[in-house]
Amino acid sequence: MSTVGQVIKCKAAIAWEAKKPLVIEEVEVEPPKKGEVRVRIISTGVCHTDAYTLDGHDPEGIFPCILGHEGGGIVESIGEGVESVKVGDHVIPCYIPECKNCKFCLSGKTNLCSLIRVTQGKGLMPDGTSRFKCKGQTIFHFMGTSTFSEYTVLPEISVCKVREDAPLDKVCLLGCGITTGFGAALYTAKVEKDSTVAVFGLGAVGLSVIQGAVDAGAKRIIGIDMNPSKFVMAKQFGCTEFLNPSEFQQPIQQVIVEKTDGGVDYSFECIGNVNVMRAALECCHKGWGVSTIIGVAPAGTEISTRPFQLVTGRTWKGSAFGGVKSRSQLPEIVEKYMDKKLKVDEYITFTYKLNEINEAFHVMHEGKSIRSVVYFQ
Amino acid sequence: MSTVGQVIKCKAAIAWEAKKPLVIEEVEVEPPKKGEVRVRIISTGVCHTDAYTLDGHDPEGIFPCILGHEGGGIVESIGEGVESVKVGDHVIPCYIPECKNCKFCLSGKTNLCSLIRVTQGKGLMPDGTSRFKCKGQTIFHFMGTSTFSEYTVLPEISVCKVREDAPLDKVCLLGCGITTGFGAALYTAKVEKDSTVAVFGLGAVGLSVIQGAVDAGAKRIIGIDMNPSKFVMAKQFGCTEFLNPSEFQQPIQQVIVEKTDGGVDYSFECIGNVNVMRAALECCHKGWGVSTIIGVAPAGTEISTRPFQLVTGRTWKGSAFGGVKSRSQLPEIVEKYMDKKLKVDEYITFTYKLNEINEAFHVMHEGKSIRSVVYFQ
Repeated sequence: MSTVGQVIKCKAAIAWEAKKPLVIEEVEVEPPKKGEVRVRIISTGVCHTDAYTLDGHDPEGIFPCILGHEGGGIVESIGEGVESVKVGDHVIPCYIPECKNCKFCLSGKTNLCSLIRVTQGKGLMPDGTSRFKCKGQTIFHFMGTSTFSEYTVLPEISVCKVREDAPLDKVCLLGCGITTGFGAALYTAKVEKDSTVAVFGLGAVGLSVIQGAVDAGAKRIIGIDMNPSKFVMAKQFGCTEFLNPSEFQQPIQQVIVEKTDGGVDYSFECIGNVNVMRAALECCHKGWGVSTIIGVAPAGTEISTRPFQLVTGRTWKGSAFGGVKSRSQLPEIVEKYMDKKLKVDEYITFTYKLNEINEAFHVMHEGKSIRSVVYFQ
Repeated sequence: MSTVGQVIKCKAAIAWEAKKPLVIEEVEVEPPKKGEVRVRIISTGVCHTDAYTLDGHDPEGIFPCILGHEGGGIVESIGEGVESVKVGDHVIPCYIPECKNCKFCLSGKTNLCSLIRVTQGKGLMPDGTSRFKCKGQTIFHFMGTSTFSEYTVLPEISVCKVREDAPLDKVCLLGCGITTGFGAALYTAKVEKDSTVAVFGLGAVGLSVIQGAVDAGAKRIIGIDMNPSKFVMAKQFGCTEFLNPSEFQQPIQQVIVEKTDGGVDYSFECIGNVNVMRAALECCHKGWGVSTIIGVAPAGTEISTRPFQLVTGRTWKGSAFGGVKSRSQLPEIVEKYMDKKLKVDEYITFTYKLNEINEAFHVMHEGKSIRSVVYFQ
């Protein structure tokens, strides 16, 4: 029986409140309204940003909600006026939409579409309401995606159509971490051939920066992490050297400047630590070094440095979702994966069923996983 | 009688020690050694950086020395092997050289030639000695230029040959402040047509940023200064709006963001105040705003901001000598002046003879001058 136009009852992992495990519940998912699509999620990654909110670190976190923002799914139904996707299309939900019509999209200079930012930040659809209910209570959306539900509703501008032969249980990971790192190297920093690159933090994002640097033809890629076990995988991904800051007396930026005859051409912070952000800037070469912040720092913390660092030619910038425009450029990233120019399968350390989802958070907190993928069936 | 190969005795303003007025003395200027040129200075500007060192704020200031770095002069003699300039050539001494052969020059990405950085920082010529003596004592060079002397010796790579019809008592100012601001807009930030620009600090550098923004076709140029009298000249230079931070309750960055529907495309800090540097970054538009630090902050001070400012697409950079390559690009700036596309004469508030040079510092400290030019004859 068709579910189109009907409320769907399905399973979802609900975050009832901060610092509590997710609870698998039956939720009611309303049909998509005008300009919206309802998507059956096939699988979803579990990312640090989900944990950041669940652990109560995000001052703007709203509960109860359905977390999740690295999903892959199939369009179940579409609301009025939706033209860019149709029922049955394979899509990746995108926490940064692309309306192609706002000041940001029209600028051609950024991927930070602003059209639905305010309502998305409040855990609501663009019309100011939620499509989720559980036990009679409104459940809030999260990052405009809420992929920890068997069915979710998204604005049309928040789904990226992908080719149907791309396995959704792999390319779901392109909805966040991998694209973020890979794009930061290629789109934000624009790493050049034969350059020297430093990558701080060798989790999923750092590994993806390494892939971007390799793709751009960097000749020297220095990985920095306090956990030496991370170097094994980093090396497989193309990292050429490894530094563990705890093995040095001097600040790590000084070590890097000495090892590279003046500093690196490009550096990336993939942790979210403001002290590391400073080190990443200061390990850059005078005259042209570009440092890109990717990690999300705790609320209230600040970066600092001597202005001399900038006056002598270093550039400090940042990247969100790798500077990748979600609907027009994400398909290029999927292409890279399908052409075997971008590793994705290798990130998946563990797979879980929906009812095991708390285990995915557990192994992430323990540093045992690069990425866990949760299946809905 | 030819002075070539001879020690020249001439007048110079000596900075015997920090926080004391300059003293006009007879100095002995040795002939240029291999790869050096001796230049008769016709006139020189007096810049805040001279005052910064004289006032003892530069921890690396070395005394006794001959200050001055905005000069215009004529080559009196050349040392062995000098081929790029000849006796009689009109030149602008450049505190950033251009050897065209070091890692920095060859990169094509920066104007920060590093070849003689170490000796220049020690107040010495590249061979590690000084060419100045006074009363039997060695007098140190300053910024590799020492233009407060009737004759000075410079490395060949530190002089920029300029066309002979360019008046040296005007284009001397292109040796620092004007080029710094104009170049920062055009070469470092690369201001685009129809963009919105904020300029913090409306002294000589700020006025020159305005000129660069006008040259680039900016449509809205907001000048910010605590001294409203500065707006008169800023307006003549092309500033379209003026803001005095002391007239607002809110932080000035917030005022600017509101006035510009999200922030400016480009901002420039032309003061050297780390709090203003933060405001300049934070008044930039999300997604693409670029903030360029030009001012030199007091030793030990640091800039800071929330990393979110960068992650959401703002870029923080800096500029030294406007990113202008001193020997290959400064002639283009002279060209702009000769073509009346760059104002220079308008900066000259006062002119002095060498023996009145302390008065030039005095009016600068009192905020009465944009630029003073000192004549040697």
